[in-house]
Amino acid sequence: MDLHGGNTYKQEREGKNIKLDYSSNINPLGITEELKNFLIKNLNLAEKYPDPDYIKLRKEIAKFYKLSIDNIIVGNGATEILFLYINTLKPKKTLLIAPCFSEYERALKNNDSEILYFELKEEENFKFNLESFNSFVEKNQIDLVILCNPNNPTGTFIELETIKKISKICKTKNIKLFIDEAFIDFVENYELKNASLLKDENIFIMRALTKFFAMPGLRLGFGICFDKNLLSNMNFKKETWSVNIVAELSGIFMLNDKNYITKTKNWIKEEKKYFYRELIKNKNLKVYKTEVNFILIKLLNETSNNLREKMISDEILIRDASNFKFLNEHFIRLAIKDRRSNDLVLKSINKFLGS
Amino acid sequence: MDLHGGNTYKQEREGKNIKLDYSSNINPLGITEELKNFLIKNLNLAEKYPDPDYIKLRKEIAKFYKLSIDNIIVGNGATEILFLYINTLKPKKTLLIAPCFSEYERALKNNDSEILYFELKEEENFKFNLESFNSFVEKNQIDLVILCNPNNPTGTFIELETIKKISKICKTKNIKLFIDEAFIDFVENYELKNASLLKDENIFIMRALTKFFAMPGLRLGFGICFDKNLLSNMNFKKETWSVNIVAELSGIFMLNDKNYITKTKNWIKEEKKYFYRELIKNKNLKVYKTEVNFILIKLLNETSNNLREKMISDEILIRDASNFKFLNEHFIRLAIKDRRSNDLVLKSINKFLGS
Repeated sequence: MDLHGGNTYKQEREGKNIKLDYSSNINPLGITEELKNFLIKNLNLAEKYPDPDYIKLRKEIAKFYKLSIDNIIVGNGATEILFLYINTLKPKKTLLIAPCFSEYERALKNNDSEILYFELKEEENFKFNLESFNSFVEKNQIDLVILCNPNNPTGTFIELETIKKISKICKTKNIKLFIDEAFIDFVENYELKNASLLKDENIFIMRALTKFFAMPGLRLGFGICFDKNLLSNMNFKKETWSVNIVAELSGIFMLNDKNYITKTKNWIKEEKKYFYRELIKNKNLKVYKTEVNFILIKLLNETSNNLREKMISDEILIRDASNFKFLNEHFIRLAIKDRRSNDLVLKSINKFLGS
Repeated sequence: MDLHGGNTYKQEREGKNIKLDYSSNINPLGITEELKNFLIKNLNLAEKYPDPDYIKLRKEIAKFYKLSIDNIIVGNGATEILFLYINTLKPKKTLLIAPCFSEYERALKNNDSEILYFELKEEENFKFNLESFNSFVEKNQIDLVILCNPNNPTGTFIELETIKKISKICKTKNIKLFIDEAFIDFVENYELKNASLLKDENIFIMRALTKFFAMPGLRLGFGICFDKNLLSNMNFKKETWSVNIVAELSGIFMLNDKNYITKTKNWIKEEKKYFYRELIKNKNLKVYKTEVNFILIKLLNETSNNLREKMISDEILIRDASNFKFLNEHFIRLAIKDRRSNDLVLKSINKFLGS
């Protein structure tokens, strides 16, 4: 089983062709011809080192997300930001709100942090329970809470009012709060709902630019931090020139492509509803409501591994979600893509599971 | 003063135009049209995550450098390899052979390693002195020695016979040896002179692909390691997908461009001699013999900062080398580029210093 989605290379090496990768959650609009042309024109810049301060890129991010450049740190994918934060903070004991993305654990284990888990319960449809969280934190001495919002793999989203309460609870106990907002650009009206609005020194926010702009191969993420001291420590620890110039140029260009952004917002609004509506027609599935561009599903009469293997014969790769903490061998995660592809996936699922 | 060369961005923000960047040591042949065309054709691959195992890239590196794929780890620039090695090894006490590249210190300080220095002496023309090294190591308890070969900034090169002896001394004392060979591709017949030929478990070798192939903005480096256990620990600690797909594709493509490689070897052989010969004509300079694509120079009647400032008025940026350990305010480092540019730099130096 793969640790992450999106590894079609392994399948190909095993002689299996994959036409539709539903294991990784990338905007199906893909890379535009305009971006390609822009990159070609500017590729000579790769003969120079990148700007070690990434001023232009940070300015564009600040402008787009209505932030100050001083609160932004850019990274070689969100992964660098995560690892750098953990390496800098070196928390002794960390609470993960789980199920969640597996890289948190790797970053924490690298720093010998003890890991506790707060379970998002299946019987509560993986909704965050503030009361239980409060009493959990009361009982345990913790340095850091890591929260993925919107949650990967469940697709649930915690509203800003609740984030505010979580942050307040953390603050009174001197706990730092790390919020992974890698998928937040797919949430409707996220501009009014994201944690950066709180400008809270206690909170560190991780973002990715490569999912919404369909360029995970280019690696580009950033962090938002209102704690000057922490940010300066992170910058001291950071590897120089970690963001590749092509990633930098692509970020700058795409944040200005209003047409792409509007088209993406329209697509996800429409297709999220459609895919959910079609999937719930299949009585062999329990489909969890999602706020983003992927859907968590429980297979009622089949294992995720079996379905995954069967669908590979249709040249479709899905994410076997059984290795997420607190999930089991019946969970899969599906990306949401364009209508035609979604229909092919629906057809394949219905064929193998019955409907 | 800049910590590194190549930061023309800062100059530009200060309203100063730089036409010739002699502060960073990049192959003047630059990025080829063939590479650009190849990247354009394959840019859609950026819509996918990179192969987390980088099999194709590691295979090409192995083939080109006559290594085994199992001994290769790739990184987001050589910088990632350096930081990852230090983060994994966590040496308590490290000996730097200095003057040397400043990033070693940053990586070591991040891990609270105590740092000792073994001085390459100006009066010995910065040549490595094996006897002094041996007695230094006898007297001090050290976990790790970091050696830059060819040395940046001095341009001197330690022959393989001596490296073998250094490694033997280290081995008897249980000291690891990290050799930075970022510039070795510019050394004549490096194929017969590099440390990978020793296949020594004790030695870790860092390489860069972006200096020789003129793509520092793309960030691509690798490590060579014959210690399976260490390599597996490094892979566990490594950030997933750290090498961007454009860097990966460029590495694969350029390692197969025999014409570019031959042209580069011919250029450096010729131009190294020419630039040296012309520079030593100026009696106000002490020019150190170099084995690579940059030259260390001592200004006999001027400070490096003054000359740097003056040459900026000619739109030339040189490296003020005074912040290298054991150097002083009279040292500069010059890149070696194409004949026309080298002549412009010579003219500017002679104008400002007299000849």
